[in-house]
Amino acid sequence: MELSVFSDERFMKEAYKLALQAREEGEIPVGAIVVSKNRIIGKGYNQTEKINDVTAHAEILAITAAQNYLGAKYLKGCEMFVTLEPCVMCAGALFWSKIDKLNFAAKDSNKGFTNIPQNLLHPKTKIENGLLSNECSVLLSEFFKGLRE
Amino acid sequence: MELSVFSDERFMKEAYKLALQAREEGEIPVGAIVVSKNRIIGKGYNQTEKINDVTAHAEILAITAAQNYLGAKYLKGCEMFVTLEPCVMCAGALFWSKIDKLNFAAKDSNKGFTNIPQNLLHPKTKIENGLLSNECSVLLSEFFKGLRE
Repeated sequence: MELSVFSDERFMKEAYKLALQAREEGEIPVGAIVVSKNRIIGKGYNQTEKINDVTAHAEILAITAAQNYLGAKYLKGCEMFVTLEPCVMCAGALFWSKIDKLNFAAKDSNKGFTNIPQNLLHPKTKIENGLLSNECSVLLSEFFKGLRE
Repeated sequence: MELSVFSDERFMKEAYKLALQAREEGEIPVGAIVVSKNRIIGKGYNQTEKINDVTAHAEILAITAAQNYLGAKYLKGCEMFVTLEPCVMCAGALFWSKIDKLNFAAKDSNKGFTNIPQNLLHPKTKIENGLLSNECSVLLSEFFKGLRE
């Protein structure tokens, strides 16, 4: 079966490519994109080490890029694809953006926002997860294994 | 009684001045500073409207500025003074920064991070609040009253 040009899996693969880019630069490998009308309007990958900024998570950078593209602060009609479950900070940013949908690959049982027993996203934001979760978690676990060696 | 040059009240007044600056620019009046060794190393005021960016809260900008100043991503030995209780996003950013202390003026009973029944800050981060809370809340309520008129 051929993948649709605009399938969720195709978009998650784009986020995955950004995670690979993060790894390339010695950053925790997480990548995120924002999609509007089947078009990627924002990209980000984790850059906390390079720019010494704890706020430079993939999601924050992708949100800022998408807002710049739209010239608007609400991500109406947009969906985020991200390789790892967002942390509390990023969930808070997604809340403010009122994004339509969040699609994350791997769960983060330690720092993921769903560990907080309250919905941190905007009530209108739909959530989906699990797509390419294996590839995305392996990327992370191998990165951390490499750091320990 | 004369105020010590380095008193908490003096620092909160600096944050308040930044909130006034935000109001001047038509932004929700919130200001924040980061202090290290009695020196202001980061400043920020809300700029979400001007730069169309939901992540441009006073606290995020002050954290980024302080990290730039230190050339390090952890705000070791630092304290934040902010005129309004941080939201979930900003509390998440403070968590990652491992800041020593958060001192906020007015409570935010709607979007403040303490409305979440779990500590979102780093376990080592001390919290204080209430200093200049009246001035800081009046600034906000008058701003919103002005918007409605």
